[in-house]
Amino acid sequence: MRFAVTVEVTGLEGISDPEGQTIERVLPSLGFEGIGQVRVGKLVSFAMEAASRDEARRRAEELCRRLLANPVTEQAKVMVVPAGEA
Amino acid sequence: MRFAVTVEVTGLEGISDPEGQTIERVLPSLGFEGIGQVRVGKLVSFAMEAASRDEARRRAEELCRRLLANPVTEQAKVMVVPAGEA
Repeated sequence: MRFAVTVEVTGLEGISDPEGQTIERVLPSLGFEGIGQVRVGKLVSFAMEAASRDEARRRAEELCRRLLANPVTEQAKVMVVPAGEA
Repeated sequence: MRFAVTVEVTGLEGISDPEGQTIERVLPSLGFEGIGQVRVGKLVSFAMEAASRDEARRRAEELCRRLLANPVTEQAKVMVVPAGEA
């Protein structure tokens, strides 16, 4: 079966996020008020062939650990849906 | 009211994605087979004070146009939920 996998990689709580801080700092000069807690992460999507949704999730989580996210500074959230449903 | 806003910024169809291509190329050497169409985008989240959900969405979409996404190469998807519900 074919699955559509989406991985959200975001900084762990307490880890500095310079890109988010820069966006936040420039907002008032663009006329945007009342916006805070800006955080910037990475969104990775891909298609995966797997025997089941559980297998797809397991392999996607292993891929996060080995390549997509740095567990010291980042957390990864994996979403798996059958291809075509997203 | 306070809202939690999430923006997914991804490359438009047909726009080259070097980071995704690099991930895809390295996968077989890590033992991952059956994965394709890897795309890497940006995930921006923030808190926003606004009078209503509609206003929050409108301002977030304006922020995408003016700062977060390059409309020539990227598309932005905005999600707005009342703070605490996410």
